[in-house]
Amino acid sequence: QGILERLDAGEIVIGDGGFVFALEKRGYVKAGPWTPEATVEHPEAVRQLHREFLRAGSNVLQTFTFYASEDKLENRGNYVAEKISCQKVNEAACDIAREVANEGDALVAGGVSQTPSYLSCKDKTEVKAAFRKQLDVFMKKNVDFLIAEYFEHVEEAVWAVEVLKESGKPVAATMCIGPEGDMHGVSPGQCAVQLVKAGASIVGVNCHFDPETSLETVKLMKEGLQAAKLKAHLMSQPLAFHTPDCGKQGFIDLPEFPFGLEPRIVTRWDIQKYARKAYDLGIRFIGGCCGFEPYHIRAIAEELAPERGFLPEASEKHGSWGDNLSMHTKPWVRARARKEYWENLKPASGRPYCPSMSKPDGWGVTKGARELMQQKEATSEQQLKELFQKQKF
Amino acid sequence: QGILERLDAGEIVIGDGGFVFALEKRGYVKAGPWTPEATVEHPEAVRQLHREFLRAGSNVLQTFTFYASEDKLENRGNYVAEKISCQKVNEAACDIAREVANEGDALVAGGVSQTPSYLSCKDKTEVKAAFRKQLDVFMKKNVDFLIAEYFEHVEEAVWAVEVLKESGKPVAATMCIGPEGDMHGVSPGQCAVQLVKAGASIVGVNCHFDPETSLETVKLMKEGLQAAKLKAHLMSQPLAFHTPDCGKQGFIDLPEFPFGLEPRIVTRWDIQKYARKAYDLGIRFIGGCCGFEPYHIRAIAEELAPERGFLPEASEKHGSWGDNLSMHTKPWVRARARKEYWENLKPASGRPYCPSMSKPDGWGVTKGARELMQQKEATSEQQLKELFQKQKF
Amino acid sequence: QGILERLDAGEIVIGDGGFVFALEKRGYVKAGPWTPEATVEHPEAVRQLHREFLRAGSNVLQTFTFYASEDKLENRGNYVAEKISCQKVNEAACDIAREVANEGDALVAGGVSQTPSYLSCKDKTEVKAAFRKQLDVFMKKNVDFLIAEYFEHVEEAVWAVEVLKESGKPVAATMCIGPEGDMHGVSPGQCAVQLVKAGASIVGVNCHFDPETSLETVKLMKEGLQAAKLKAHLMSQPLAFHTPDCGKQGFIDLPEFPFGLEPRIVTRWDIQKYARKAYDLGIRFIGGCCGFEPYHIRAIAEELAPERGFLPEASEKHGSWGDNLSMHTKPWVRARARKEYWENLKPASGRPYCPSMSKPDGWGVTKGARELMQQKEATSEQQLKELFQKQKF
Amino acid sequence: QGILERLDAGEIVIGDGGFVFALEKRGYVKAGPWTPEATVEHPEAVRQLHREFLRAGSNVLQTFTFYASEDKLENRGNYVAEKISCQKVNEAACDIAREVANEGDALVAGGVSQTPSYLSCKDKTEVKAAFRKQLDVFMKKNVDFLIAEYFEHVEEAVWAVEVLKESGKPVAATMCIGPEGDMHGVSPGQCAVQLVKAGASIVGVNCHFDPETSLETVKLMKEGLQAAKLKAHLMSQPLAFHTPDCGKQGFIDLPEFPFGLEPRIVTRWDIQKYARKAYDLGIRFIGGCCGFEPYHIRAIAEELAPERGFLPEASEKHGSWGDNLSMHTKPWVRARARKEYWENLKPASGRPYCPSMSKPDGWGVTKGARELMQQKEATSEQQLKELFQKQKF
Repeated sequence: QGILERLDAGEIVIGDGGFVFALEKRGYVKAGPWTPEATVEHPEAVRQLHREFLRAGSNVLQTFTFYASEDKLENRGNYVAEKISCQKVNEAACDIAREVANEGDALVAGGVSQTPSYLSCKDKTEVKAAFRKQLDVFMKKNVDFLIAEYFEHVEEAVWAVEVLKESGKPVAATMCIGPEGDMHGVSPGQCAVQLVKAGASIVGVNCHFDPETSLETVKLMKEGLQAAKLKAHLMSQPLAFHTPDCGKQGFIDLPEFPFGLEPRIVTRWDIQKYARKAYDLGIRFIGGCCGFEPYHIRAIAEELAPERGFLPEASEKHGSWGDNLSMHTKPWVRARARKEYWENLKPASGRPYCPSMSKPDGWGVTKGARELMQQKEATSEQQLKELFQKQKF
Repeated sequence: QGILERLDAGEIVIGDGGFVFALEKRGYVKAGPWTPEATVEHPEAVRQLHREFLRAGSNVLQTFTFYASEDKLENRGNYVAEKISCQKVNEAACDIAREVANEGDALVAGGVSQTPSYLSCKDKTEVKAAFRKQLDVFMKKNVDFLIAEYFEHVEEAVWAVEVLKESGKPVAATMCIGPEGDMHGVSPGQCAVQLVKAGASIVGVNCHFDPETSLETVKLMKEGLQAAKLKAHLMSQPLAFHTPDCGKQGFIDLPEFPFGLEPRIVTRWDIQKYARKAYDLGIRFIGGCCGFEPYHIRAIAEELAPERGFLPEASEKHGSWGDNLSMHTKPWVRARARKEYWENLKPASGRPYCPSMSKPDGWGVTKGARELMQQKEATSEQQLKELFQKQKF
Repeated sequence: QGILERLDAGEIVIGDGGFVFALEKRGYVKAGPWTPEATVEHPEAVRQLHREFLRAGSNVLQTFTFYASEDKLENRGNYVAEKISCQKVNEAACDIAREVANEGDALVAGGVSQTPSYLSCKDKTEVKAAFRKQLDVFMKKNVDFLIAEYFEHVEEAVWAVEVLKESGKPVAATMCIGPEGDMHGVSPGQCAVQLVKAGASIVGVNCHFDPETSLETVKLMKEGLQAAKLKAHLMSQPLAFHTPDCGKQGFIDLPEFPFGLEPRIVTRWDIQKYARKAYDLGIRFIGGCCGFEPYHIRAIAEELAPERGFLPEASEKHGSWGDNLSMHTKPWVRARARKEYWENLKPASGRPYCPSMSKPDGWGVTKGARELMQQKEATSEQQLKELFQKQKF
Repeated sequence: QGILERLDAGEIVIGDGGFVFALEKRGYVKAGPWTPEATVEHPEAVRQLHREFLRAGSNVLQTFTFYASEDKLENRGNYVAEKISCQKVNEAACDIAREVANEGDALVAGGVSQTPSYLSCKDKTEVKAAFRKQLDVFMKKNVDFLIAEYFEHVEEAVWAVEVLKESGKPVAATMCIGPEGDMHGVSPGQCAVQLVKAGASIVGVNCHFDPETSLETVKLMKEGLQAAKLKAHLMSQPLAFHTPDCGKQGFIDLPEFPFGLEPRIVTRWDIQKYARKAYDLGIRFIGGCCGFEPYHIRAIAEELAPERGFLPEASEKHGSWGDNLSMHTKPWVRARARKEYWENLKPASGRPYCPSMSKPDGWGVTKGARELMQQKEATSEQQLKELFQKQKF
């Protein structure tokens, strides 16, 4: 059964977690470029991560093609340049995802994401050509459906959806925006409306914000669609980091990004709350993005097991709400084998010299400053810093 | 070259990270029992983790035989019981470790750890028999050397060393104790002396405490050996969690153990500080335990690259001190591409409703209370709680 | 010179601090009722506090008549009931304030605040009568001007201003609201417009929110007046507590109110920042409310000394930015004798088991719930709790 | 009845709070010098503070003669120099204390504290002469007993006790030390023994550390006395700041001293816990030092009211455990009118960008460094800093 059949039938579809962060920690992805050449260089590592998500309950395996457009691979990952072509990376990604999907009954989704071409103001034709190049591979490898994800500008997301729709396959579209909307100031409700009008059957958010904030954004999308009398399935794949303190552009601007985010990692219990809230909000495609490890995905599957009627395979190695602690020799550890305990725990950081919140870097949302940067005018670091200072108060 | 040849020549030997925590998050180990039947059930997952540590710079791959003594597998992991014998688990662990070790030039170390037999007051003969059973497998599979690790009582650790020494192979011994010493009140210095006298060539600590506390304990061991005019190599494999607030029995007694430890996870930069301090203290076998992921091990290898003259393979996907951020489009992210930035960052938890420290559970170190529990007298939870309350002030 | 002459001439007028909190800590006011019978019972204590504010730089001494309307004294302070009449409390308050004002050149302001009559839905005539009763005393004692302060509903504040204007004296009006506006949802800008139209020459906020939040609210008031092309002087008298986490009704709903607010107390340096920001925003009547001690008022006077050209008397016991530490015997204490040090200090709480933020109690802003309460319908605690739960998500 | 009659009869004697910090905030004492010329310059302010402590329950009013030795007044407060003689300051302090003591039935205690003469290595004769000068005034003014307080070196404290004993009046002696002992390394137990042998009838600690730490120190003193088979009454007058993070020399070395300590201020409920613990430990002279405001002293009196059989006067303005909130209009505020609420509250700081602990400044306890400083050798700031760095780890 395809993605739309499942969703139309009211099923809960569980997505997978974040590849670039998980594989960075395992030694196969470089932070900064974040490109997925590991599909060619170290397929066993990519395969194993897919398998872990499958065991954890994922019904959708996304091809590891994040930032795998040709312009991005050239721009950021130029060290891969000659050696590994864009096409090879995308093909290998499809093959690995399909191989593991067949170990269970998961769907394979081909994914595209925002491009340097758009950010450097290339025109629609050129940007669309980049998406089409990836789409060609997805069609050749016959993925089950397509996802346009990680877009900061709804304009580019719409272009991506338009390209992906050419395939005839179902298209999902998620933006990496918060409740304030996209980088040009388009509200989440408006973004959702435009994406559905462009052909997306599933819309929502991914990355950049924590689960709580992301659900707020999806709620605004839902309201926007309702107001416009449009129908679509809802989807959320947030960070697995607590980021109550981030600004409009999300966790990139937090001082801890990307090498000091550890204290922000969410627990499995946080994820159970997220899954419940997402479900209550009407979201039926529930997954994760950066920071989501297999045990986070399993937490979604476990929280929603009553609704779904089954547990994922990896739950054979996990007791519900810590009940595997009930045999511990120490009575106070045994006392942790219950839902109330973990639900109410306020976990300490063990870092008494650190604050609980940070002030985000960046010049936030000053339109002038952003335009300056985007136009690549001869703006020195000093000028940018001054602009930033000025708009702070 | 064997472990002692390397250490005697002054080489830095890098250990590996924590298997039970990493594989629990990946869905292959059950928290509570923490037993390693995955070596038989899912060898590909164990193999992949070994490989990641190898790529990250580990010179020693420990067989995944933690808590794989027969009594433990029966006691805690009884669900594996019939299906998978103790011998099979240990044999598979050796095979997997050797297979991956041969992909580089790492050594394979067979490991034993504390037993339920000792804790339930079985006699020396019986406890030693448990260790000997594992040792038989290690000899058959011809591991390179042996590690007795995760002992809370030096008496049992000494017995383990005595058994392992029968093999003629080099023996390392690490205890999971803090500066206050073992559970019977033997100081770290005395523990080290007893272990060396029993035949250990390498002594130190593993698990239960954070890097900083663990180094304090090894320092006390070093001083104990010096005072006794004994020689041994030093080793440390601490947690990758910040635990300044834990009591004598370590992180087990923290309310967050084991499912809410996320905010305590150390950063790669914390590990670089740890590696430097460990080196300065004269420790030459430097690794990690629970919480250590491949990128933490890589941080040890990168910090000590100047002394060692080379980087690990996985550093091809990592810039020193964030220098891979220097190409970022945002100037304030580029500004993070330097050592001073990450060294001085005080990472926020994003959890303004949580404290920075917890009060450990447990009755701590009251001798009477511990004896009560160990003797399995008919002590109700209520009685234990009262005992605990009483000794709190 | 009167208050308006001073403000019209561009002078900075410094208000005084919080009486009920300061005198509660000194043992003369009861938290809960917060009534000012101390003017009769212990005039020496009230006099001394006035004197300390005068020495600290206050140009205005407010009569200690907070909650001194007859209905309030009867309602909450009924234990004072017979013994001490409303009139006596107000008269004594005027006498003490005048006596101390004459020790310097401060003005005396008679103050009225919100009444139980309004909250229990008495009509306009009845509410106005309560204000008029206090006004009679202020006229008899010939105060210099009048302040209507601590109003949560602009409707009642307007009635108060109308009564006070009957006197012919200048009237200031401050509401205890945040950026979300009054309890009926009237925005700060609209509140300001209504107050000025009713006759207030000075408008702003007092109490309930921290300095930063209060300045945001005054900024909105300023913008509202500009949009309506109205002119008035601006005034702010915020809390001396950090309350970034409070909801619409301010610090009353924080779990720490009123007996656990200590860790939130602002430093003198926080106040210097506040004074500077207030000044930059165009506010010229700058004072404080609950939590403001004499040294906080002195901090306003010291920050604005360059603009005003003089220091307050109490600065003879205070060095600018800690420069009185420059003679300390310890070099690291001497190193604290500079502006940069105190400006950038992030003071620790010494409370590692406490969070940095709280979730406010209360049902926030649900109109239905509030109306229920105000109508004093037979609403059980249980019903209220359910209402509250319901609106939480 | 004299102090010893009361203590010998088993009475609880309540001390007063901290004058220099309270009067600094009120504008009458300068931080840095901390000298008490206010007794002459502003007697009404000193009188009022005494009166507030009396109302709050203090049975002992200490003359405000802290740092009022001649050498100190000359050294630090030289701006008072000519104008106000040491004798006048001490005489006025006695007169004011006696005047207020007569409003109740409190005792007046004359106090001396450590001298610059000792710190600059003057000999015994000279140091004793400084104490004798103050004692002459105390005898002339006929105080009820004497307190030697705030000594960092037991040697000087013993000299002070020897001088005070010449008077024939009872002598109490408290040191500002923590569990690590005095600045020359003498343990608390040994300090207590020496002080009692020198003639002190009451011994304990004051200032420099928080209530919890101070009680630990008194406990060590008690054990030292028991071991030496000596008898004395115990006394504690700690800070009203949480300082779990301070080093050997106490809160002086915390980065927040003295102008950023606000978030550390203890609540009245913290004080109730302190009073109970102090009582349980056998301490019968229980008061406070820097940071203690009248309401903190009242909290001691209220906690121990069951044992003493009466409440202090100021409790007429205070409900036990917040019970004055039980009439509040908001049900969730009413819910705070109970002991369990305030006992268990973990008060938030409202400062999400601040840590919970600080690292103390100073070079700690390196003997060499301290000697260097004390000998006033030509030590540049740079040299000191290097020394400090070196010993840090």
